[in-house]
Amino acid sequence: MKISINPNEESWSELIERPALKRDEITKVIVDIFSEVSKKGDSALCDFNQKFDSAFIDDLAISQIEIEKACNSINDELKYAIQEAKENITTFHASQKEEIRKIETQKGVVCWRESRAIEKVGIYIPGGTAPLFSTVLMLAIPAQIAGCKEIIVCSPPDKNGNINPAILYTAQLCGVTKIFKTGGAQAIAAMTFGTESVPKVNKIFGPGNQFVTMAKEYAQQFGVAIDMPAGPSEVLVIADEKAIPEFCAADLLSQAEHGSDSQVIFIANNLDIFNETIKEVNRQLDVLPRNEFASNSLNSSHFILLDDINKAFEFSNLYAPEHLIVAIENFEKYIPFIQNAGSVFLGNYSCESAGDYASGTNHTLPTNGFAKNYSGVSLDSFIKKITFQEITKEGIQNIGKTIEVMAEAEGLIAHKNAVSVRIKSSMIKK
Amino acid sequence: MKISINPNEESWSELIERPALKRDEITKVIVDIFSEVSKKGDSALCDFNQKFDSAFIDDLAISQIEIEKACNSINDELKYAIQEAKENITTFHASQKEEIRKIETQKGVVCWRESRAIEKVGIYIPGGTAPLFSTVLMLAIPAQIAGCKEIIVCSPPDKNGNINPAILYTAQLCGVTKIFKTGGAQAIAAMTFGTESVPKVNKIFGPGNQFVTMAKEYAQQFGVAIDMPAGPSEVLVIADEKAIPEFCAADLLSQAEHGSDSQVIFIANNLDIFNETIKEVNRQLDVLPRNEFASNSLNSSHFILLDDINKAFEFSNLYAPEHLIVAIENFEKYIPFIQNAGSVFLGNYSCESAGDYASGTNHTLPTNGFAKNYSGVSLDSFIKKITFQEITKEGIQNIGKTIEVMAEAEGLIAHKNAVSVRIKSSMIKK
Repeated sequence: MKISINPNEESWSELIERPALKRDEITKVIVDIFSEVSKKGDSALCDFNQKFDSAFIDDLAISQIEIEKACNSINDELKYAIQEAKENITTFHASQKEEIRKIETQKGVVCWRESRAIEKVGIYIPGGTAPLFSTVLMLAIPAQIAGCKEIIVCSPPDKNGNINPAILYTAQLCGVTKIFKTGGAQAIAAMTFGTESVPKVNKIFGPGNQFVTMAKEYAQQFGVAIDMPAGPSEVLVIADEKAIPEFCAADLLSQAEHGSDSQVIFIANNLDIFNETIKEVNRQLDVLPRNEFASNSLNSSHFILLDDINKAFEFSNLYAPEHLIVAIENFEKYIPFIQNAGSVFLGNYSCESAGDYASGTNHTLPTNGFAKNYSGVSLDSFIKKITFQEITKEGIQNIGKTIEVMAEAEGLIAHKNAVSVRIKSSMIKK
Repeated sequence: MKISINPNEESWSELIERPALKRDEITKVIVDIFSEVSKKGDSALCDFNQKFDSAFIDDLAISQIEIEKACNSINDELKYAIQEAKENITTFHASQKEEIRKIETQKGVVCWRESRAIEKVGIYIPGGTAPLFSTVLMLAIPAQIAGCKEIIVCSPPDKNGNINPAILYTAQLCGVTKIFKTGGAQAIAAMTFGTESVPKVNKIFGPGNQFVTMAKEYAQQFGVAIDMPAGPSEVLVIADEKAIPEFCAADLLSQAEHGSDSQVIFIANNLDIFNETIKEVNRQLDVLPRNEFASNSLNSSHFILLDDINKAFEFSNLYAPEHLIVAIENFEKYIPFIQNAGSVFLGNYSCESAGDYASGTNHTLPTNGFAKNYSGVSLDSFIKKITFQEITKEGIQNIGKTIEVMAEAEGLIAHKNAVSVRIKSSMIKK
C-alpha cells in the first residue's frame, strides 16, 4: 500500500503509471503459435492443449451431450441467478438499439444509417483460477441481440479435457453456436485463420493474460477486428466524508482479488474515512480465500488523501480508470466532471460487483488508460453502421454545383464528371 | 479490365482478392522513424521534411499569417462550396448525437450511458497528387461536434514549405486548433509521442499511403487509438436494365482516378447495359487528366455479368465494398440484403462523388474488406460512451442475492463480500 498525502500535481504522472507489457519476449512466442495454427489447424490446437494445459483431447468441439451434462450439474440457485443477470443485461443492451433516422440535408438529398450485425464473432473465455461464465453473459448477450449469425466460444480445457459447466450452461443459454476446447494465443489464432473445427471469425472479444492480449493485437494484421486493447483490471474509488469505509474496503478488495497485477486506487478527502478504510482493508483481507492475489495487488496500490475533492476527479480523468466508484453523497454534481472512465458506480450502494455480474451494464471495459479513447463493449461492438443516401434529380441539381467545384479544386475531374453527366441528364429528362 | 460472365461461386474468392501490404519491408522503416521522432522530436521532423519532401522548414506550426494568406487566396465559389458541404456534413453528424436513456433494469437499479469527447484528436491529411481538403471537413466537423478540445492536423509541406491553401482554409473553418507541416510515418509518430511542437493525441484519423497506414497500426502499441485499418479505395456498382451506362462509367472512373491501386468492380444483369458501360468507360477515360491512374486501376478491375441480381448482392456482401452503388430501379427491396458495405448510394442519381464531398455522410470508410467488421467514421468515432449506474438500498436488496451467488460460483469471494456488507447494512439502517 503506497500512501500519498496531498501529492502535488507534478507527481501524479508517477501515480498513474501502469505495468508495462513484456512485448518482445511475448511477440516471438505468438508469431510461432500463429504460424503453427495456420499451417496445421486442429492438430496444432491439440498439441498445444497437451503442451500448455496437459489435456489430451481428440475432439475440440463441445458435444451436445457435454452441454446437457453440464446443465444438469448446475444447481437451481445458480441457474436462477444467471437467468436474472441475463434478463438485466438483455434489457440494458437491447435499449442501445438505434432507430433509423432519415435526414434530408438538402431538398432531395436524404442520408441515414442502418445497423447490420457482424456476421461471425468469437468469444475468448480464460481458464485459470476463476471460471468466468459472467463474461459469456456480457459478450454473447449483445451478440445475440445484434443478430450475429455465428457466436463461438473458445476456452482452455482443464487437464481432464473439460470446460467448467457454468461456462457451458451460460453459453447455451445465450445462443452461443459452437464451443471449442482451446485456449491462449492458439485459440486466438484459430479464430483468426479458421481450422477444420473452429470457424474463422470477423471479430474477437474477451479477456485474457498477456499472451491472449498480444495475440489479439497481432490477429488484427490478418483482418480480424478485436473488442479493444486490454490490460490488468482496475478500480479507482473516490470517497467523501459520507462514504462508508467498510464498503470502500470491500470494493477495493474485490478488485485486488482478480490478480497480483490488479490496479487499485483509493482517494478520500477526509482523514478519518481515509484511515478507517485502510484499517478495514486489512481486516477484510485476512479472511479472503484469494488473500495472496489481493495482498500482492495491494502492495502496489495507491491510497491518496486529497483535501480538494475536485482534484480527485482531475486525478481520475488523468488515470482514466476502468471502474470508477463515486462514494460521495451529492454525486450528481460531479457527473459532468467525469471525462475518462469505463464504467461509473454512483453512491454508497452501487458496488462494482453489481456491474461485474448482474445490473445490466457490460463488464468488458477499457483498462490501462484506454478509457481515454475507447468505450466499453456494448451492442455497438457487434454491429457496423452502414450509411445510405438517396439523391433525386432535384437533389443532384441542388447539390451538384458544390460537388463539381470541390472535385475540381482537388483535381479529381472524374469525380466532377460523375455529377456533371447527371446534372445534364436531369435537365433533359422529364 | 477483367471480364467474367456468370462466374461460378467457387471462383468468387479470386474475384474479391485485394492487393497485399508489403508488410516486412515497411515495418523496419516505420520502427526506425518512430524511434527517431521519439528521441529527437521536432528536429527529427525537420530532417524528414528535408529527406522526404525536400522542404527546409524551421517552424513546423502553421502561423496565423499563413492561414490568413491562404483564406484570401481561395476564390468565393470554392469557399461557398466548402461552406455548403460543411452545413450538410454538420447536419448529418449532429443527428448522430444520442439522448441519455436511463434504464431501470430492476427496481432500484438504474443504468445509462453518457457520451464524452475524446480529448485530443489528430487528423492526417496526405500531400501528393490531390489536396484533400474534403477529408478535413469529414474529420474536423464531427470532432468539433463531439467537443474534442484539441483537434490538430498534420500534412506534408510542398518543396516550398507550404500546405495547400484549401486545406488551411477548411481547417480554420472547422475549428482545427493547430496545423503542422509534417507528413508520412513521422507525422503519425509525432502525434503518438508528442514533440516540442506537436501535441500527443489520444486518437489518430485520416488516410495515407502504405507507410501511413502501417504507422497508424504501429502507433496503437503506444496507447493511441486509430480510426480504422485502411487500404486502397474501392467501389462496387450493381446495375440492372434501368441503369444508365454513362452514369455507371463515370462512377467507375471516379474511383479509378484515385490511384493505380484503386479497386473497381462492375456487376450487371443485362448484357446491353454491361457492354454499353464498358464502351462508355473507354470513351470517358480518354479525356481524363488522371488518365494514367485510371487506366492502371481499370486494368485490374472486374466487370462481371450475373444474370441473377440477387447473386450480385451475395457477391457484394462477400467483397464488402467501401462504396456500393445500387443503380437499380427498385432499390428499396434490396436494402435488407446489404450486409457488408461502408456507404451505399441508391438509385441512378446518387453518385459516390456526392458522399465524397457534400451530401452529409462521411467519406472515411472501411476498405479492404473491413466493412465486414468496421463502421465508417461518424460522431461515434470521436466519443467514448461511459456507462453509469445508481443502485439504491432497495436495489441492492433486489439484485444482491444474484450477485452473491454468481460471485461465489466464480470463486471471487471479495466480489461477493462487497454486496454482502451492503445488504447487511441496508437491512439495519433506515
